[in-house]
Amino acid sequence: MDQRWIELEQQMHRQGMDTLLITDPKHVYYLTGFLSNPHERFLGLLLKAGSEPVLFAPALDGEAAKAAIGSMELITHQDTEDPYRLLRQRLGSDRPLGTFGLEKEYVTLDRYERLQEALQFSASADIGPSLREMRIRKSPEEIKRMRHAVKLIEQVLELSLKQIKEGVTENELVAEVEYQIRKLGADGPSFDSMVLFGEKTALPHGVPGERKLQSGDMIMFDIGVYANGYASDITRTFGFGGLSAEQITIYETVLAANEAAIAAIKPGVTFGSIDKAARDVIEAAGYGPYFNHRLGHGLGIDVHEFPSVHGQNELLLREGNVFTVEPGIYVPGVAGVRIEDDVTVTDSGVDVLTTFPKHLQYV
Amino acid sequence: MDQRWIELEQQMHRQGMDTLLITDPKHVYYLTGFLSNPHERFLGLLLKAGSEPVLFAPALDGEAAKAAIGSMELITHQDTEDPYRLLRQRLGSDRPLGTFGLEKEYVTLDRYERLQEALQFSASADIGPSLREMRIRKSPEEIKRMRHAVKLIEQVLELSLKQIKEGVTENELVAEVEYQIRKLGADGPSFDSMVLFGEKTALPHGVPGERKLQSGDMIMFDIGVYANGYASDITRTFGFGGLSAEQITIYETVLAANEAAIAAIKPGVTFGSIDKAARDVIEAAGYGPYFNHRLGHGLGIDVHEFPSVHGQNELLLREGNVFTVEPGIYVPGVAGVRIEDDVTVTDSGVDVLTTFPKHLQYV
Repeated sequence: MDQRWIELEQQMHRQGMDTLLITDPKHVYYLTGFLSNPHERFLGLLLKAGSEPVLFAPALDGEAAKAAIGSMELITHQDTEDPYRLLRQRLGSDRPLGTFGLEKEYVTLDRYERLQEALQFSASADIGPSLREMRIRKSPEEIKRMRHAVKLIEQVLELSLKQIKEGVTENELVAEVEYQIRKLGADGPSFDSMVLFGEKTALPHGVPGERKLQSGDMIMFDIGVYANGYASDITRTFGFGGLSAEQITIYETVLAANEAAIAAIKPGVTFGSIDKAARDVIEAAGYGPYFNHRLGHGLGIDVHEFPSVHGQNELLLREGNVFTVEPGIYVPGVAGVRIEDDVTVTDSGVDVLTTFPKHLQYV
Repeated sequence: MDQRWIELEQQMHRQGMDTLLITDPKHVYYLTGFLSNPHERFLGLLLKAGSEPVLFAPALDGEAAKAAIGSMELITHQDTEDPYRLLRQRLGSDRPLGTFGLEKEYVTLDRYERLQEALQFSASADIGPSLREMRIRKSPEEIKRMRHAVKLIEQVLELSLKQIKEGVTENELVAEVEYQIRKLGADGPSFDSMVLFGEKTALPHGVPGERKLQSGDMIMFDIGVYANGYASDITRTFGFGGLSAEQITIYETVLAANEAAIAAIKPGVTFGSIDKAARDVIEAAGYGPYFNHRLGHGLGIDVHEFPSVHGQNELLLREGNVFTVEPGIYVPGVAGVRIEDDVTVTDSGVDVLTTFPKHLQYV
């Protein structure tokens, strides 16, 4: 049995759950390898203590589910069937249930009431924190997939840079990025692809538009993909034509902050200390107020996942954590620069998944 | 006071709610005109019976919220503040509460427990069905916005058709569609834009890829946008080069089914009868088993919303309903054709929002 199932059974035991139902599609993927978007249909992974898991999936996803889960039991339902009745039938004489585990941050009140009515459990408990705790430690296979997702988005960036010329619009580059994402065979973008020029790089909520590229602009790409269910998320900033001395100073300061944070990464230090390593560099250069966001965020099956990498986070880094390091400086009217890498914690330090060059490049 | 607020207060009274909290961002938009995606942050519209509503929004959306809601009371919160504590403070001496209204299909169990802990209501009731019932009847202003969203996607389609030539790929046309959506100033695509060629048009779960266009292919576009918060969703199928007699028969059958369904639309008939009007045409032509989905779905603030237009739906059409009419025939190895219009029910019949020609066109 997979390590994840062993941990899950241990958690069920610890929390006194006799039955567990996982319905977040990302968690179903994490535990079974079956990735899907059921939309409003029912998807659920049922686990009774001491028994084998059973996957409930919409009939139209049946073939894909079977291919992914191998010998695990699969029960499919048509749109006209009541999935809660099927759950009750499968649990059979095990009802009434004791403590029923579910993801309280995912299950809606409507679904909870339907489950309660169908299954009549005496209490419920939250499995969400346990899954979050499991997902924060990536396996070598997960890190391999994320390295691949990073490689794909780096190829996308390289190809998209070829379209840069005076007068091209942000929208045109976003279209090129998204076309290359599809063409290279990724699952899709992991968030709205962002390309900004000039003064727009300094806007915290900048949205790509019809702004045309002109000499003296900085160009910021913040892009990522999902591939095999795992996300990448990188940012690179470039110069176009000549840059001012201050623009160059800002760039070099952000780069030094990025490198200081990465140099500070090793097991046993706090996430807060990594944020501080970058922030100290930017504050020393006098740009402290212009670095107005956290250093980064966890990365994995979701493009933003636990933990948040901010100055107050006292959680300790452990081998297998994967997160972004993305310091930035945004000076209105001058320039915005962000340099974002995806990194993983090793047994003694850090492995940077991103390989795209970071020195100031003019394109 | 706006008609929607009057109806909402009436529903609160009918269901015995002394307090109501709306947290689905689409419902907040419907009631206040403030459209946002709060992600994991808290957004809520609080209404006490007999009092003015109060909007709670994340601080970083404060300016946008203020611009949208006018004189309505606004309480913003920083990421470091507990929004549930702010709710409790604002309710002040009104606690303990009686029956608390919320959207049970939207509120997670985790949020419900936090609300219960902070506000200590004695019971909860579901406002979701009342809002669904209100949203199904579109106002003239809403229909105007949807007509605009349809017009935008028709312009996108017209511009994208210019890129059609032998050897172009599905992915390249999707990129063109999404680029034009941005360029024309829509909020964004209302779902994953779909362009399929040849044999792929007959796949119910076809995904655009590197398939190259060749003579004798059918081309299917299923595309839509959000504009001013309202969705459009249209499908047109074209021929490229010569088509076979069977491909042409399939096209003409789907077109006749689309037109029969539209001709059947008027207030007082059932949604099921509209589905049947189309299905009868397709069955009479011998293609019944190849029309394997419902006729359509409600359209509005969400691209798929209440009601579902299927054969068993006994709900009666009323003036102001807006929904899609999208019959299709999918014969593996031969062709898939779907023709999808967006329509609204008038006081005596139907107004078709879509204006793009439907006769078989070769591009």
